[in-house]
Amino acid sequence: MILDDFVKGFGGKVYPVNPHEKEILGLKCYSSVTKIPGKVDLATIAVPAKYVPQVMQECGKKKVKGAVIISGGFSEVGNVKLEEEVRQIANKYKIPVIGPNCLGVFDSTSKVDTLFNPRYKMERPRRGGISFITQSGAVGAVVMDWAGAKGFGVSKFISYGNALNIDEVDLLNYLGKDKETNVICMYLEGTRRGKEFIKTAKKVSCRKPIIGIKAGKTEQGAKAVASHTGSLAGSAMVWEAAFQQSGVIDARGMEQMFNYARVFAEQPLPRGKRIGIITNGGGFGVLATDACIKNNLEVPPLNKKIVEEIKKKVPKYAVIKNPIDLVGDADVHRYEVALDAMLKDKTIDAILCIILFQTADIDSSVISVIAEASDKRKKPIVCCAAGGSYSALHMRLLEEAGVPTFESLIDAADALTALAYYEDFKEGATCPI
Amino acid sequence: MILDDFVKGFGGKVYPVNPHEKEILGLKCYSSVTKIPGKVDLATIAVPAKYVPQVMQECGKKKVKGAVIISGGFSEVGNVKLEEEVRQIANKYKIPVIGPNCLGVFDSTSKVDTLFNPRYKMERPRRGGISFITQSGAVGAVVMDWAGAKGFGVSKFISYGNALNIDEVDLLNYLGKDKETNVICMYLEGTRRGKEFIKTAKKVSCRKPIIGIKAGKTEQGAKAVASHTGSLAGSAMVWEAAFQQSGVIDARGMEQMFNYARVFAEQPLPRGKRIGIITNGGGFGVLATDACIKNNLEVPPLNKKIVEEIKKKVPKYAVIKNPIDLVGDADVHRYEVALDAMLKDKTIDAILCIILFQTADIDSSVISVIAEASDKRKKPIVCCAAGGSYSALHMRLLEEAGVPTFESLIDAADALTALAYYEDFKEGATCPI
Repeated sequence: MILDDFVKGFGGKVYPVNPHEKEILGLKCYSSVTKIPGKVDLATIAVPAKYVPQVMQECGKKKVKGAVIISGGFSEVGNVKLEEEVRQIANKYKIPVIGPNCLGVFDSTSKVDTLFNPRYKMERPRRGGISFITQSGAVGAVVMDWAGAKGFGVSKFISYGNALNIDEVDLLNYLGKDKETNVICMYLEGTRRGKEFIKTAKKVSCRKPIIGIKAGKTEQGAKAVASHTGSLAGSAMVWEAAFQQSGVIDARGMEQMFNYARVFAEQPLPRGKRIGIITNGGGFGVLATDACIKNNLEVPPLNKKIVEEIKKKVPKYAVIKNPIDLVGDADVHRYEVALDAMLKDKTIDAILCIILFQTADIDSSVISVIAEASDKRKKPIVCCAAGGSYSALHMRLLEEAGVPTFESLIDAADALTALAYYEDFKEGATCPI
Repeated sequence: MILDDFVKGFGGKVYPVNPHEKEILGLKCYSSVTKIPGKVDLATIAVPAKYVPQVMQECGKKKVKGAVIISGGFSEVGNVKLEEEVRQIANKYKIPVIGPNCLGVFDSTSKVDTLFNPRYKMERPRRGGISFITQSGAVGAVVMDWAGAKGFGVSKFISYGNALNIDEVDLLNYLGKDKETNVICMYLEGTRRGKEFIKTAKKVSCRKPIIGIKAGKTEQGAKAVASHTGSLAGSAMVWEAAFQQSGVIDARGMEQMFNYARVFAEQPLPRGKRIGIITNGGGFGVLATDACIKNNLEVPPLNKKIVEEIKKKVPKYAVIKNPIDLVGDADVHRYEVALDAMLKDKTIDAILCIILFQTADIDSSVISVIAEASDKRKKPIVCCAAGGSYSALHMRLLEEAGVPTFESLIDAADALTALAYYEDFKEGATCPI
């Protein structure tokens, strides 16, 4: 599987190594790493755990620059000694190692892809600015699969497993400096370096948003962590404080992490937390207001002059407050008027635009109107639409136009909250220049 | 649109009425309701507001048994007098009225369908046990569209708008007695009859679950309600207490309401709140545990004998605790063993089964294993799966097999919480026999 990924995607040279084969997937197979002609940049190791020390020795002699050890069977099942042996070899030869016990890495630029999940089961995302580091291969695989299926661009994906000599702190540092990465996602079960983690995360947060999931926050979740990666989970309060100090955006779950990443990747930061809501269904306006207020966002009255301007251009029965209710027979023109006004109104920092595509008078043309407003990049715009296949198609079109679109008003409000939270952190943080 | 819905779906006689036309959609058109030959069971009125009193007078003379007034332009825009005039006519002739200012009704048995959203924009659901009453047409339309697209069965849908002489209390009473309705969903912005509402909701909750959304819970949400349906929103605390007293399951948002409805429609009630978790990805086990514990569910240790039984049948590196981590190379056999054990184990009341379809060794055959376990109806089973198109296909197959399946672990835990909450209410409530 892994070799196949390299053969299909990677542009450089690939050398299979196996003592029993002469050829794999049409490539000449070498009996040992040391037999490979020329230099080797990366070794991907997927042999039974007990053979890993020997292979790493060979990599050391060959002066391999880095290694990904996919194999499991180390500290996570109690084989602490074997892992320590591998660590000593790696450190002796100064080989940075991702793993063991991991999915490894995916890089959308070089097409290095050590993920052993079949491509028909797990889609690979296009090139883009979201990078992801994860202690759990399974969680990582799902997020990659989502990104692939939903059309979001990924730069680097690193499943680092037992963190032999490269851990979350090293990886945060690396992605913080990586020019291709604009947003960092992170799934953690624990860390061995608490202080360095906070210091590094804070430094990186000043440059780009980090969205984090800390798993094992409850006492019983922490017990489950112990039998998964064997990490010390730490208390929920300590982790929440650590995230807050370092500006890491705390995600409740994977979907939320993915939602936040989409919004940070596509939309500008707001100046504050005053949300303008546009809807063609009154009930959705009420629920959206509730969702924003519950998140400590504000839904302020619109500027009076701007209200008068809008009223001249829409029917009398439309409700021009905040939320603006364009009502059930709203057409694209009314959305154009409302969006223009919200972009102009200085009392509004970000826009939540609800479009119910079930109604008779709304059609696909509203997508270009919203996309144009979003392209101005003056204020963040997120959309909410929900329903069956007709709505799903239009949601996808909005997403493709760079406008993050949610079925759930709560998800939309959460995403705007994440933007406002990060803007707040950047304003308040004394970031090193 | 509405006539077209009747022509295409309804089996009985349909009479178009309009003073200017002789024929509509191939049907003979009558100039007045009084000119229709024979009896009329239902009048669907979609004329400008000012003509509604006249049409209702004609309906009264014709002894029409019921009316749906779609037309807006009444109390919601300040026309209180006009609405009162219509109410007096309706009451004089004893005509129960749904509306005005609503989408009206959909009945999957008789195919009465007054919803004016085009079918290509809003799907109609198949026949089933979920019924829905809503004060907001837009919210209702989205839920119907979801049910249609996702294959869930609906019995009755009632968008009742301004509640002329039929309100949420009447409708709850009706659906409580309706044999085709197993689960009631309800979107409310307010009520004029607080005490009767609680009394009725409690009585109905003893028979079948009611899932409620109360919109306008925040102060600003309540203001938005005032300019939407003009209802008095009431305080959040009062509503939460009312829901709790009457056993109504409080949904945070529309997706949650829909999720709960799916689980109640498809799965039995649990005996308690002790959840067994099965996974093929350790990280998901940790997150699932966190999600359950945060919801005050329990994730107890498995029975020791059963643990020993499982261990005999699965590889040593699988983690046989709760959660059961079948690990990344789990195949269908391991799921079979784990599900059997969880169904047997008396310390477990409900099962959360996570299947990550990205892994190489899991395939579609796991669906029939889970469906069979679910068909026994001994304990509720919900699944969690997430990812791109391969996973989405398998999620759909699980749903079609009657197993509610969520992408989000939080949604799955919430759904199990709703089941446990309702079971608790039924146990504790002194229900009238």
